[in-house]
This record gives sequence, structure tokens and C-alpha cells, in this order.
Amino acid sequence: MVKEIFDHVSVREYADKEIPESVLNKVLEAASRASNTGNMQIYSIIVNTDKEMIAKLAPTHFCQPAITNAKAVLTFCADINRFKIWCENRNAKAGFDNFLTFMTAATDAIIAAQNACLEAESNGLGICYLGTVIYNADKIIEILKLPKGVVPVATVTMGYPKQQLPLTERLPLEAIVHRETYHNFDKADIDRIYAETESLESNKKFVAENNKQTLAQVFAEVRYTKEGNEQASKCLLDVLKKQGFLPNE
Amino acid sequence: MVKEIFDHVSVREYADKEIPESVLNKVLEAASRASNTGNMQIYSIIVNTDKEMIAKLAPTHFCQPAITNAKAVLTFCADINRFKIWCENRNAKAGFDNFLTFMTAATDAIIAAQNACLEAESNGLGICYLGTVIYNADKIIEILKLPKGVVPVATVTMGYPKQQLPLTERLPLEAIVHRETYHNFDKADIDRIYAETESLESNKKFVAENNKQTLAQVFAEVRYTKEGNEQASKCLLDVLKKQGFLPNE
Repeated sequence: MVKEIFDHVSVREYADKEIPESVLNKVLEAASRASNTGNMQIYSIIVNTDKEMIAKLAPTHFCQPAITNAKAVLTFCADINRFKIWCENRNAKAGFDNFLTFMTAATDAIIAAQNACLEAESNGLGICYLGTVIYNADKIIEILKLPKGVVPVATVTMGYPKQQLPLTERLPLEAIVHRETYHNFDKADIDRIYAETESLESNKKFVAENNKQTLAQVFAEVRYTKEGNEQASKCLLDVLKKQGFLPNE
Repeated sequence: MVKEIFDHVSVREYADKEIPESVLNKVLEAASRASNTGNMQIYSIIVNTDKEMIAKLAPTHFCQPAITNAKAVLTFCADINRFKIWCENRNAKAGFDNFLTFMTAATDAIIAAQNACLEAESNGLGICYLGTVIYNADKIIEILKLPKGVVPVATVTMGYPKQQLPLTERLPLEAIVHRETYHNFDKADIDRIYAETESLESNKKFVAENNKQTLAQVFAEVRYTKEGNEQASKCLLDVLKKQGFLPNE
């Protein structure tokens, strides 16, 4: 059993204690051991430990506490830039300016990110993924000086946890696992699958605070709205065009 | 240190020994503990252990040995279908038919996949990611009966390893790690970074077998060609339209 997997909780408040270089190095090495497509390693990791740089990045992640007091911020990027330069220097005709290569590189970057997270946790660090990385990829590209061919896809913040936290609830396995083919969900399935989550006091409080009737309304109408999602989609698709992974119509 | 991370090798040949349900269950539980966006768990895992189903899937992965003799095939999918039904049943207006939500869900699915892989390895299994999942997503959707809102993004095959394998080489950390901002690569950097990889006997053999002059040519002109990448990009973008994550122009 990989203990770190089953003990994982997202940590958003970090103690005022620096991460030793030796630990950070182990985390990065763990990332580099990850499965990746054809062993091309078409990803990169931008490591920010400088306070000023972290402060610059913070607004692109809506200044969440997880970034404002982070001791290290790791931005994992789909990266075809280095590989293309290698190809050019070795007289090879590269054809990586397309969506498939972006998805391949993004997948490799995210697998590497999860290795880094587990190794960090194994060294006593707390981690938090920031989904905001793809909302403001354009601004992150500017701050981190990412060249064409490089797109940030996963941001992880790290630090020593300020306090111990309880595990977060998860849906029962039947909600996410399908044997042989996909089984769709009827009303009774949905009621059963979501019963525990909906009955938690913390979630009931969350619904009340947001002046909503159901937990689903909080997610769909407050946290992840159609308008917000569509605006961010447009921004992200523009980034993919600008960075060379989608054609500029 | 997470031992499984540093011991990982992709295993493509499996022994004729079934995976106990208890082990498979632990692997799936590990997946479900993964970090995910807003704890929405907008992903699903299709588990194939039935020989006929695995044989049906094999051609979509170009009948690689890693799938033809796999004891279990796990297809991790970006999945907004279940979450949308929940929203509909709870009187919540969902706005998830967009590219941002696809990327969010795909990220969650891939993080879960890597948890599953490490837990599998911790239980003595060998694993292999099949990048082909996004080349033939349309056919996989058909075989696994994935409804609208569901797109396969990572396929992992599993089984007990037929033999012990040596670690695969990786580029030095300086190739993938950038401190504070991206540092671009000049000719000397590229020569230094790729020196070890290019000097390996196995890679030299690989170049000779493919009648090429450089290793980069094998990757760019034989394995991952411009034409192949562009054809697969078109197919994948069509899948995203059909499954409701990109507008049908």
C-alpha cells in the first residue's frame, strides 16, 4: 500500500519553515521518473521559491491562501519547445504543432505532477493543486516567460502543514467505477451515490452560506458557473493557438 | 521516499496470473483518493478484465503486447455525465459543455490514474500507460459505451510482470526543471542534455534499425510524424465536439 495516497489531504495553510533544497530535489527527481510518452519527456517544471515571484503569481491563482503562504510553487507545463530545438539541431522534421501533441504533453506533465506530490507528502510536506492554472494560463505564461510550445497545465503549491487535517469524503466507488462498459445512472443511483456527501454537516452549512437549496446548485451556479467556464474556455483555447497547438483560424 | 516512484518501469509483458479482486479494489480505491477539482470527482474508470472485451479494445491500441496479454485494462475518462445528472436532479443549472471543463476533468482523471498505477505497483503488479487512448478515442467510446460528456484520456494496462526489467534512462533534471522563470536552450545546452541518451547502445541500435542518422529523426519522422499527429488531432477534436466539450461549428 502506498501510504501517502491514502493519507492525502490538500493542505492550504503552510508553516513558516523553508523547504530544504535536498527535499525539493527529491521531489523533482520523483517527477522525472514518471511514465511518459515514448520517453520524450515533453514537459517542464517551473519551480518558484522566491517570495517576490510567488507574490507575482498569486493574483493569477486569485490570491488563494494556498499560494500566498506557499514555500514552493511548481508549475507543470506541456512543453514541446526543448524537443523541437533538439529535432532542429539533429536535422529532424518535427510535426508537433497540433492538439494531439498538446494532450500528450499535458498528460505527461500531470503524471509527473502527481509523482512530485506523493514524494513531497512522503517527506512531510503538504500540497495543493490549483485548478486556476488553466483559467489564467495567459498571465502565467507572461510571468514565467514561457516560450511558444509551452503551456502550464498543473500548479502545485507546497509547504510544511500548519496543522493536521482530517481526510475529505469521497463518493462511493460505484460512482466512478464501471465494469466492462459504462452503466448510466438513474434517479435512484444518483440519490444513493450522493446521499452521504449531501448529508454531511459541512456541506449543509456550505449550501446555507451560499443561500442555495441544494449542494449541486452551489457547484453549478456559484463556484463553477456556465459564464465563468465559457470565458475561461475561450482564454485557454486562445492560449493553445498562441502557443502553437491549435491553428489560428 | 515513495519506493514505487523510483522503482517504476513500464511493463508490457504479463505473466498468466489473474489479479485478485481485492488487489484491483485497492487500486481503484487509491484512484478515488486522488486530488480533484472541488471534490466533484468528474472522472470515471472503466475496468476491463473480461478477455473478450480486452480483445475488442486491443485494435484501438494497435494490438500492442501491453494490451493483448493484459489481465486488466483501466480506461480513465473525463466525465461530466454523472455530475450533470446530479445537477439536473437537484434543480441546478449546469454549464459544463465547454473546453475548460474537459481539461479540468481530464486533469482529475490523469491524477487518479497515476495513484492507481503506484498502488498497483506497490501490490506487485506491472503497469503500462497506452498513449494510443487519445488516437482512437472515437472507437473506444463505442466499445465502452461512453455517453455524451465522457471522453477517455488515459489507458493503463496491468498484470504481474513476466520478468524484471532495468530502469529506463531519463534526461538530467536541468532538461525539465527551470528555477523562477523559463531558461531557453542553446546548442550547447541541447548537446549536453541529450549526450547520455544519444550515447546509449540501445538508442544507437534504434537509429540504425530505422535507417536514420539521428535519434531525433526516429521520433519525429518515424514514431510521431506530422501526418499522424495531425490526423489524430482532427479525430480527437471531433470527439470533443461530439461529446459536448467543444462547439460544433
